[in-house]
Amino acid sequence: MTGLPDEVRRRLQSQTTQLWSPPGVIDLGIGQPQNEILPLELFSAALAKAARERQSYPLQYGIERGDGYLRAALSEFLTEQQALTGTPASQVDPDLILVTNGNSQAIDLCCAAFTRPGDVVLVEEPTYFLALKIFRDHGLTVVGVPVDGDGLRMDALEEALARYRPAFLYTIPAGHNPTGVTLPEDRRRRLVELAAEHGVLVLADEVYHLLRYPGPDGGAAPPGPAPLAAQLDSGVVLSLNTFSKILAPGLRLGWVQAAEPLLARLEGRGQLVSGGGLNPFSAAIVATLLADGSAAQYLAGLRATFAERIAVMDEALRAHLPAQVSYRRPDAGYFFWLRFPDGVDTAEALPRARALGSGFQPGRAFSTTGGLPEYLRLSFAYYAAPDLRAAVETLGKVFGRLI
Amino acid sequence: MTGLPDEVRRRLQSQTTQLWSPPGVIDLGIGQPQNEILPLELFSAALAKAARERQSYPLQYGIERGDGYLRAALSEFLTEQQALTGTPASQVDPDLILVTNGNSQAIDLCCAAFTRPGDVVLVEEPTYFLALKIFRDHGLTVVGVPVDGDGLRMDALEEALARYRPAFLYTIPAGHNPTGVTLPEDRRRRLVELAAEHGVLVLADEVYHLLRYPGPDGGAAPPGPAPLAAQLDSGVVLSLNTFSKILAPGLRLGWVQAAEPLLARLEGRGQLVSGGGLNPFSAAIVATLLADGSAAQYLAGLRATFAERIAVMDEALRAHLPAQVSYRRPDAGYFFWLRFPDGVDTAEALPRARALGSGFQPGRAFSTTGGLPEYLRLSFAYYAAPDLRAAVETLGKVFGRLI
Repeated sequence: MTGLPDEVRRRLQSQTTQLWSPPGVIDLGIGQPQNEILPLELFSAALAKAARERQSYPLQYGIERGDGYLRAALSEFLTEQQALTGTPASQVDPDLILVTNGNSQAIDLCCAAFTRPGDVVLVEEPTYFLALKIFRDHGLTVVGVPVDGDGLRMDALEEALARYRPAFLYTIPAGHNPTGVTLPEDRRRRLVELAAEHGVLVLADEVYHLLRYPGPDGGAAPPGPAPLAAQLDSGVVLSLNTFSKILAPGLRLGWVQAAEPLLARLEGRGQLVSGGGLNPFSAAIVATLLADGSAAQYLAGLRATFAERIAVMDEALRAHLPAQVSYRRPDAGYFFWLRFPDGVDTAEALPRARALGSGFQPGRAFSTTGGLPEYLRLSFAYYAAPDLRAAVETLGKVFGRLI
Repeated sequence: MTGLPDEVRRRLQSQTTQLWSPPGVIDLGIGQPQNEILPLELFSAALAKAARERQSYPLQYGIERGDGYLRAALSEFLTEQQALTGTPASQVDPDLILVTNGNSQAIDLCCAAFTRPGDVVLVEEPTYFLALKIFRDHGLTVVGVPVDGDGLRMDALEEALARYRPAFLYTIPAGHNPTGVTLPEDRRRRLVELAAEHGVLVLADEVYHLLRYPGPDGGAAPPGPAPLAAQLDSGVVLSLNTFSKILAPGLRLGWVQAAEPLLARLEGRGQLVSGGGLNPFSAAIVATLLADGSAAQYLAGLRATFAERIAVMDEALRAHLPAQVSYRRPDAGYFFWLRFPDGVDTAEALPRARALGSGFQPGRAFSTTGGLPEYLRLSFAYYAAPDLRAAVETLGKVFGRLI
């Protein structure tokens, strides 16, 4: 019996999750859910149930489109969640759902299926910085389209569609990363109309759609717009979603909703046919949690937790940040997006913030052109209220001196 | 509360695993492990243990190279399994392991990272038919290199390397799919030497390496050659492996062993960075099963089960197939590869075999050129002994008339 030296084993066992910051830093740049709120006991109970019932199919090669139990349960879950949007409920079509192994993999899969190296893709300026990395992996040229306080500007989109003839537009329509903005209903309709006119696909990254929060006065969250997944009839929308933000990232489980010809293209890829779908084991477990209502219950609790943290962060920002810093309290998602006066470069303040035990994501990270130096992104997902307060207070000290 | 109509729900709930054959057919063409032998209770126990210990990290975004607990446990497991090969044990390097979401996804990832559309890739003629589909997805031109009774022919490989300057050679060196052949040690050395000389990567699909069986006289399996993973120093080998064949396919969990510069290329892909590794949840569960010895124990039982089935299938083939049919009893893997006399096209017999309740994979499916009509592939992995006997007897009736 051979064995690894103890120091190698200890080193390896410290390598479990992504490391963004040194220990001791409360890094508000981390856009992940807090470890302590991940519901491991739910997963354990669901798997124990499957084992008791001797349901071995979760361990077998799955079907390419994804576990039918999950697609059935997800269709009902999504239909019920439509109450969020204030639109009349219409049954979400389970046949137009393809189960994925998470959103990052789904974005990569869509690039592989629908683009060629050298193609242009449009994104919001700013946008999710790690999506940009995936696009570059595929040899795509990324062009940013400007946003305003309501999200993507339709005049700029129309111009970019005509000028670049892109392979697709990548957009985050609700709780935008990093700006926190939710695109209003009228722009959603116009966006899909423009894309359809130009024959351009819309990769809608709707991972924050189900995370809607009440305003400062509390109560229920005001109804938001319907997801772009409600516009599959257009034939150009691929709505990407994931359980990472509403249940657990480690599952690597998500879904795509799209019109049949688009799903058929994805489903026919060799890696799905050869591998037997993208993640049957996680899918079967989550199917149980959706069907017995525990996923919906967990999500309701998560919204309440995050709504509280938004209130805490909002209050701390008002108390500690200089009055020249502006932001909008988010109504959805994971993020606050702060604007500092012109001339401030938030990236320059990052080393000092870290030295004092706080952290953030500088605006430049989200820009397609290295711009937006006067912005930064904070997330309330990874830390509880006392840490959020302490870290914002530290940022107040760092930026109080700069302005 | 909305709900799906009962008939829609029932239809969806029949969509769980890949469907290759109509019900009632014992399809020896299926190359999957039997549902009944998948160890769901082991997974349930491992997850319950994690829940008791409040280890929430399996649900978090993982580290890009993969869970350190899994890489530590896998390094020790693979080192112990070297007894199979009769080579002196040397510690498998846990730092040169990258955790994947299964072999099909890993092949796809390697195509994405190491090829461009239009590149040539070399494969064995015949080879695993679904890998061909992945290569075609990436716009690669596939060129087959002939095999003989000992596997890939080195003279033909040398010629093809010089002539085509391929991006990589895809090879299945142990328990080859479909031929069942294991490449001998001397050819393995020569193969890597040639690839290194020509600066060509070797994608070694070593998924059957740990499934070695005794010969007809029983006892322990004779020592086989070391895996190509033992030749990482060459700098050209990417050894791909998976838990699909030795534990459970639905996990979508595998690993790549390669020299550091190759792993770094894979690790830096956007989908790994954005998604936080490829499958942290499955990885954490399997880490427990490797560390507590239950995976090794399960694998030993699986080898015994498959060795028995090989004996049954061998005996049934001798009893029922015409004497002109030749094959070699496999020493590894999942498959028997049968050769019929020239002039027979096994594909033509498939409808009759199905009508009588049996099935197989015709040789043509594995050919890069639509050749090999006189061959067929049988697997013993999906059925227990009585079904194997019955299905081979049926094939005897089908082919007895044709020869």
